[in-house]
Amino acid sequence: MSKGITSKSEDYSEWYNELVKRADLAENSAVRGCMVIKPYGYSIWEKMQRALDEMFKETGHVNAYFPLFIPKSYLSKEASHVEGFAKECAVVTHYRLKADPNGGGLIVDPEAKLEEELIVRPTSETVIWSTYKNWIQSYRDLPLLVNQWANVVRWEMRTRLFLRTTEFLWQEGHTAHATPAEAVAETEQMLEVYATFAEKWMAMPVIRGKKTANERFAGAEETYCIEALMQDGKALQAGTSHFLGQNFAKAFDVKFLSKENQQEYVWGTSWGVSTRLMGALIMAHSDDQGLILPPKLAPIQVVIVPIYRAEEQLQAVREAVAPLLKSLKAKGISVKFDDSDANKPGWKFAEYELRGVPLRLAVGARDLENGTVELARRDTKEKQSVPMDGLAERIAALLDEIQASIYQKALAFREANTHRVDSWAQFEEQIERGGFLLAHWDGSSETEEAIKESTKATIRCIPLNAPEEEGTCVFSGKPSTQRVIFARAY
Amino acid sequence: MSKGITSKSEDYSEWYNELVKRADLAENSAVRGCMVIKPYGYSIWEKMQRALDEMFKETGHVNAYFPLFIPKSYLSKEASHVEGFAKECAVVTHYRLKADPNGGGLIVDPEAKLEEELIVRPTSETVIWSTYKNWIQSYRDLPLLVNQWANVVRWEMRTRLFLRTTEFLWQEGHTAHATPAEAVAETEQMLEVYATFAEKWMAMPVIRGKKTANERFAGAEETYCIEALMQDGKALQAGTSHFLGQNFAKAFDVKFLSKENQQEYVWGTSWGVSTRLMGALIMAHSDDQGLILPPKLAPIQVVIVPIYRAEEQLQAVREAVAPLLKSLKAKGISVKFDDSDANKPGWKFAEYELRGVPLRLAVGARDLENGTVELARRDTKEKQSVPMDGLAERIAALLDEIQASIYQKALAFREANTHRVDSWAQFEEQIERGGFLLAHWDGSSETEEAIKESTKATIRCIPLNAPEEEGTCVFSGKPSTQRVIFARAY
Repeated sequence: MSKGITSKSEDYSEWYNELVKRADLAENSAVRGCMVIKPYGYSIWEKMQRALDEMFKETGHVNAYFPLFIPKSYLSKEASHVEGFAKECAVVTHYRLKADPNGGGLIVDPEAKLEEELIVRPTSETVIWSTYKNWIQSYRDLPLLVNQWANVVRWEMRTRLFLRTTEFLWQEGHTAHATPAEAVAETEQMLEVYATFAEKWMAMPVIRGKKTANERFAGAEETYCIEALMQDGKALQAGTSHFLGQNFAKAFDVKFLSKENQQEYVWGTSWGVSTRLMGALIMAHSDDQGLILPPKLAPIQVVIVPIYRAEEQLQAVREAVAPLLKSLKAKGISVKFDDSDANKPGWKFAEYELRGVPLRLAVGARDLENGTVELARRDTKEKQSVPMDGLAERIAALLDEIQASIYQKALAFREANTHRVDSWAQFEEQIERGGFLLAHWDGSSETEEAIKESTKATIRCIPLNAPEEEGTCVFSGKPSTQRVIFARAY
Repeated sequence: MSKGITSKSEDYSEWYNELVKRADLAENSAVRGCMVIKPYGYSIWEKMQRALDEMFKETGHVNAYFPLFIPKSYLSKEASHVEGFAKECAVVTHYRLKADPNGGGLIVDPEAKLEEELIVRPTSETVIWSTYKNWIQSYRDLPLLVNQWANVVRWEMRTRLFLRTTEFLWQEGHTAHATPAEAVAETEQMLEVYATFAEKWMAMPVIRGKKTANERFAGAEETYCIEALMQDGKALQAGTSHFLGQNFAKAFDVKFLSKENQQEYVWGTSWGVSTRLMGALIMAHSDDQGLILPPKLAPIQVVIVPIYRAEEQLQAVREAVAPLLKSLKAKGISVKFDDSDANKPGWKFAEYELRGVPLRLAVGARDLENGTVELARRDTKEKQSVPMDGLAERIAALLDEIQASIYQKALAFREANTHRVDSWAQFEEQIERGGFLLAHWDGSSETEEAIKESTKATIRCIPLNAPEEEGTCVFSGKPSTQRVIFARAY
């Protein structure tokens, strides 16, 4: 590591960009807005995928795979859906290249024009519901609980690594049910799966809520979301779960024969999280030295750096740590012993801090004499000399402690940055300092838009299970029964 | 299951198509040539992925992700590569749709034309090597051992589920090395990984070999492959591993500073297997009753079907098999107890045969009295009554036996259908009956093409480690030093 990264207090945005690149998580590709996810970044994503996939399967879902391409006519079948996506989609118009007869290199072959253009999927409701039509005949075929891991493309004008990219990786669940109650229960269940993942795995506290009508998914009756607060005081939507009503069933004519022998339209849901979670993970915890990863998602949980001058000292360290490596691995803890001689210990310390390895052990000649090691926590930077005896158990306990501690720190930050505001003056002042603003809102789209126009703040969500409270809208003064969460957002 | 599928002896091609659909593996989508992989099919693919991914990681590889889109100009940089792919690629020319001002619905917005067209990746050498240029400076950065799990698109004119589809799922490994010897060793290592997977997991024997110059990957110096024989006597290429020489390094100017302080071009490999393996798996073992799955890839390894009249009998069976379910799960054996009352036992038997579940247990009232169950093997259709005592151990052993037995059967079939042919008359006669033909070939592309023209047979591979043997070309009569494998192929 040659030099440090920009301080986040100095330039948060630049800090993020540098961190993503320097920690080998991702980089921009030659194709505008498309990223390359580098091996270290991808190994974190793989851990996220594995954990989420297990949770989906535990809740009865199965995986499948649907086509990358969507016929243009499909997109048009659900009116608000096409409204939401038509302006940002990659369109395949031809299926062949050929040599330019005028010597201009490779050109699109005009004779290979598609009869109907194909859209690279921005999301798969249309192609999936057109398939469900054939899969669903009777109530016995329901519920249909399917998930897909896939890449999707939305032609974004302003992109940022992980947070907003033209192509991104995600999972999209698409379920079909016999009753609206079942579909709503599914929507809420998957929101809770996402919230649990965010809090227990990413150590990132989230608010569970519903979107306002303005912010709903194109084609949904209700959009649930989880919202997290980043360290710069901006909100980040980390996952959404949609109750689709019968919208897609009607658009694609998906009916089932009910127990009562009636033909009825099916009720649907869809829900997704994406590589955007990588951006949230990075921004929720990291500092000026680099990433801070919760142990449950860290590809390397423990790194051991030997301190030595001569080869025989290194050999002594190797022998001393061999039983530790073995017992850590037996506990399912991923550990790396970095005995490469290409770099000095100080360089390695900085490098593993940058990469967010939760625990670092340094072992030198004096440690061997004393039967100790130096143990350093990435999150608090505390160092202590601890005995080799019982070290694997200590490490296992410490990893759990770090996981909990990172979460508590993020929660305390959110609490310190959540403000009840009761006047417009207060609102305008507080929004400049960031954070979540709990304020009364009159429930109208006009007010919501006027506030956005004036302050760039959006309603992140109407929190679930929030107490009813009589009040007056912070903007219009009209009556309101519940506070909603405002923030500027990614 | 309402009625049987077409017999494979009657119409092999139709048997395959029906089997894929009836066993819920995949179906055609509304987009020409693109398939939907259904949940049951996808769960087999997931098992394949998991096993392969572990083998890649054990051999030192890491996963990453590169963009779906490739700028048109990249494709042109390696001359033979573009030659191989330009004629079959999906081209993105626009990034927005809009409402037709003339009321014709949704149209491509002519103002949203891309300056440079983007190709949906048919394979990723070009985009990856353009990235490697920035990742590789010195010999310390080598070897670079990266794999990607992704979807790719090749605009095929004639498609078949799994075997040849416009979009398919695959993994593509792309490695970079300091020396040609290292790159060749990598190419051979990955071929061996594929062969091991085919034989130990898919229970499908394969011939390891090299392709002739004609059949090489576009841009490779040498293409290694594994070739399997299907039950209709046709060959199927199941995986390829390419030694790329310095072709892509030169096309994308990827150099490294050697230990000797010289700037040198990097040596490359690439290797891949795809959802085509699903087609191979189906065709290698299955019969007229449906799929036959090797236990290691079967999503359900054991199904237990209760035979009962009254609810209390069902309850007795439930209690009797509960300990068995527990001990099977403890052994990591996936088991399903199908107590649904929607279908009769006979229907269930046929359904699980269709789906290729390796072992079926039927348990009825008389079995409970005797302390036995009826155990049926899917592969041999043998049934026997066996004691409940020690059943989990018996099942575990039997699954291993089935895995080995399916492989042995496929191997015996291949051996019975591999023929040494020494004259053109013999060749012409034998090729009509199918199988692998071991014949001398003079090494020329002209002869290879003439044979293909005349008989539709191609050289599947030049087997590795085949004995040297003096002979004369079966077609031209010119001298030859080794037999190669001819077959008609998928």
